[in-house]
Amino acid sequence: MKFYDCKTAPSPRRTRMFIAEKGLDIETIQIDLATQEQLGDAFRAINPACTVPALQLDDGTVLAENLAIASYLEGTNPEPPLLGRDALERALVLEWNAKTEVAGLSGVADALRNRAKGMKGRALTGPHSFEQIPELAARGMVRVQHFFDLLDDRLADNQFLAGDFYSMADITATVVVDFAAWVKQVPSDKQKNLRRWHAEMAARSNYKA
Amino acid sequence: MKFYDCKTAPSPRRTRMFIAEKGLDIETIQIDLATQEQLGDAFRAINPACTVPALQLDDGTVLAENLAIASYLEGTNPEPPLLGRDALERALVLEWNAKTEVAGLSGVADALRNRAKGMKGRALTGPHSFEQIPELAARGMVRVQHFFDLLDDRLADNQFLAGDFYSMADITATVVVDFAAWVKQVPSDKQKNLRRWHAEMAARSNYKA
Repeated sequence: MKFYDCKTAPSPRRTRMFIAEKGLDIETIQIDLATQEQLGDAFRAINPACTVPALQLDDGTVLAENLAIASYLEGTNPEPPLLGRDALERALVLEWNAKTEVAGLSGVADALRNRAKGMKGRALTGPHSFEQIPELAARGMVRVQHFFDLLDDRLADNQFLAGDFYSMADITATVVVDFAAWVKQVPSDKQKNLRRWHAEMAARSNYKA
Repeated sequence: MKFYDCKTAPSPRRTRMFIAEKGLDIETIQIDLATQEQLGDAFRAINPACTVPALQLDDGTVLAENLAIASYLEGTNPEPPLLGRDALERALVLEWNAKTEVAGLSGVADALRNRAKGMKGRALTGPHSFEQIPELAARGMVRVQHFFDLLDDRLADNQFLAGDFYSMADITATVVVDFAAWVKQVPSDKQKNLRRWHAEMAARSNYKA
């Protein structure tokens, strides 16, 4: 099994944190996004979507979506459970993982990729080139604030996003909140629940992954 | 258990098709998106995200993401399995479900919601109003074509999206391909694998859901 990573990038950090929490030892290969190695022929042959993370299984199958990788690793290494232990827990993990991807991750990515000089022609990840849309960067900034409010609300009555247990949803949200700092968006003093939760996340051993 | 639906909308159709394939009988309440009932106080109290589908469980928990709803229903009604039977199958269902949501659904939604006259101020679903961005509509049209190519490629060597078994990934992709027709994008004659698969999907009894 081989894990294709980029140590500086947020998206594969979700897989890095998941692997660290499971305590797994997986051969890891760095793909240099700074030099667009992900668009080169060698990596394109492994993952035509030209994205990291990618997990190549021993049978050759390549998984290139964080949730798919997490699900495979959970199925083959059940402890500690990070995707829920019963039907309701599993549903709540997927619910908050999805909300975080849709409301949070796409907002931050829009804000960054449609404005950063180094992202010209790279407004979306993947093999195709897309020009930046400045209005989309501005919209992304607004969405990040809505996302912070959503998390703050949820975390008023829940220790973790899916309830009273740590899960993949917390991993995704940790990565997204930290990614938002790239566009200078951080939780405000008023978002006390979100700040309480983030301090707890930052104190976990997998945070540095 | 109550299922909040809108019979004419693509997103809750994923849940409708899933329920039909499982052969479940769930109390269903129609929310009229045409009159923006989803934004009214009554539905907002049930699902603050103001979206359908939403599944309210008997303990009051509301699930409002298709994958979360599917996972809950699979956990409580395992047959027929629609999310995979082992670690690899489950991962492949999530892989192709995610690709279809990111590459396909967001492209079609961008194309429609940023151009349709009736969608002014509703460029994104949810409780917040966002203005249309015409460049995003144009980009969405291009992304739909890339998505069709992606599916056509995958379906050259696979009967279904996740492999040799029907799954939630096929449900999501069926809904997205049909949704693309709303912006006048249909698979071309050259996309033979995609057309073969879509004909098979349209022949299934859950297609009319």
